Amino acid sequence: MKKIINDPSAIVEEMLAGLVASYPQLIHQVEDSRVVAKNATHKQVGLVSGGGSGHEPAHAGFVGDGMLSAAVLGDVFTSPTPDQILTGIKEADQGQGVLLIVKNYTGDILNFEMAKDMAEMEDITAEIVVVDDDIAVENSTYTAGKRGVAGTILVHKILGAAARQGRSLTELKELGEALVPTIKTIGVALKAATVPEVGKPGFELADDEIEYGVGIHGEPGYRREKLKPSKELAKELVDKILADYEQTPKKVGVLINGMGGTPLMEQFVFANDVQKLLADKDISVTFHKVGNYMTSIDMQGLSLTMIDFSNNDATDALNEPVETIAW
Amino acid sequence: MKKIINDPSAIVEEMLAGLVASYPQLIHQVEDSRVVAKNATHKQVGLVSGGGSGHEPAHAGFVGDGMLSAAVLGDVFTSPTPDQILTGIKEADQGQGVLLIVKNYTGDILNFEMAKDMAEMEDITAEIVVVDDDIAVENSTYTAGKRGVAGTILVHKILGAAARQGRSLTELKELGEALVPTIKTIGVALKAATVPEVGKPGFELADDEIEYGVGIHGEPGYRREKLKPSKELAKELVDKILADYEQTPKKVGVLINGMGGTPLMEQFVFANDVQKLLADKDISVTFHKVGNYMTSIDMQGLSLTMIDFSNNDATDALNEPVETIAW
Repeated sequence: MKKIINDPSAIVEEMLAGLVASYPQLIHQVEDSRVVAKNATHKQVGLVSGGGSGHEPAHAGFVGDGMLSAAVLGDVFTSPTPDQILTGIKEADQGQGVLLIVKNYTGDILNFEMAKDMAEMEDITAEIVVVDDDIAVENSTYTAGKRGVAGTILVHKILGAAARQGRSLTELKELGEALVPTIKTIGVALKAATVPEVGKPGFELADDEIEYGVGIHGEPGYRREKLKPSKELAKELVDKILADYEQTPKKVGVLINGMGGTPLMEQFVFANDVQKLLADKDISVTFHKVGNYMTSIDMQGLSLTMIDFSNNDATDALNEPVETIAW
Repeated sequence: MKKIINDPSAIVEEMLAGLVASYPQLIHQVEDSRVVAKNATHKQVGLVSGGGSGHEPAHAGFVGDGMLSAAVLGDVFTSPTPDQILTGIKEADQGQGVLLIVKNYTGDILNFEMAKDMAEMEDITAEIVVVDDDIAVENSTYTAGKRGVAGTILVHKILGAAARQGRSLTELKELGEALVPTIKTIGVALKAATVPEVGKPGFELADDEIEYGVGIHGEPGYRREKLKPSKELAKELVDKILADYEQTPKKVGVLINGMGGTPLMEQFVFANDVQKLLADKDISVTFHKVGNYMTSIDMQGLSLTMIDFSNNDATDALNEPVETIAW
């Protein structure tokens, strides 16, 4: 393993310290916790997300005015504990309740639900929106049902805009639950991530092999085959996503997300192929974003996310300026 | 070589097409050229930069209101041609002249100077600021004198703020020439970049080996040794940079720049080590930035840049909001 680190067991603490000290104008760390909270104190419903570390800039990079109120960091690829999540909820609450945006993994669901119950015992109303955008596989290593992956950051952004506009907790939960089914993601890996405490890649791919549909913790996908040109990868992913919608969308937003070890050069080549495929199908794209947003440490690969704007066009909410490290 | 690409010889065209189609609200491509220009038409001195491709998001990612007027893309690791640069100058000029910000490489200097002369024949005044922030080696594979690397984006940002405020071409050139010597960078590589048309890494490092001082095209550095913990790497780079200043700065800005294949997790761990070292020396850090800004395709490694604020505090200029893809 070749990484710029010190002690693998201290990696989350050191990363968190470096992150917080780098952006004191935007965020702060809640004392004695792994909670990153925004400095802005706009009065609104709080939005809290989080999960295992290793997906940087998610989720701490999306804390700030117009997106998340707080993010809770677990160990690498491990859910944060309920008491840490509770700290995040308390920090985010301004008397109007707190919405928890949770990626669908068994550990995360369990711990965020427990934190919600604990918050309610302290008279803080909390609700949960579960994101399960990964259409690659129905159940997976750490999941009952579909996994939550890169599409989660679109939920952060759209609900973040709505919360800033003053929507109530009930309205935000409804909005979130209507939003999640419109967002679909699928990924492809060229090389698996190496968890620092493990020291070797989570799975092995031959020099000419890729795997479609892997998760952001190296969970298995649905097919392994020889590396193909970008345009063929794009066709596979675009077709899979479109086939999963009941009705083919007429208008979409597109997020191309690098997994951590794949340079922007490749992501933009792939973006070009996706754009051509969608243009050929007369699907209009009114929002694009390309870069590393929900990574899997140093995994090589990328994911494609589409959000269907046919019934609810969120382009404006996605384009609204925010004050975060990484949006 | 395992990359998400199509034809290696078409990679710049395809990347450029993907980039421009993804951010039509911010930038556009000048017809029949490899010039990316901002949509904003604020009346000011034009700022043009560019260079070889492979350093994404540099430089096209820094085109937009408050930073560059236009960026000119060469082939991978190859200077853009004078006629392409001239197209960029013409696009950027609004009658007040154009400043060219050029990284110090022999090919770039030659071509930007030729483009400047060509512009002057068409009655457009142009000036050049050369950035040579890499203190690792005095001369290098493609350079007479020091190389221009990640510190260049600080020049884009600070001169971008000054240009937007209405400074004249002469003032901007003076400001740039005073600025460049305050910026110092040094890098470390764990794995070299693979140029798509070459198909294998530019140099080989053993599984436990790193090289200090490599350039952003895989130029040799000054020492190769066994991989060390982040805090020791940080000490090597911090000490080298501080020793290069005539007087130790009391106040600095810090840019930690990932080379393309190194995840944010490692960059933030390294940031934490740099912050502790500077705190121990009572050097105040009033600006931080951490992420992939001036990459070397998929190189694993990072660079540390410091900017001395002792005589001229550019913190405000660096924090001013801009409308770009990647700042």
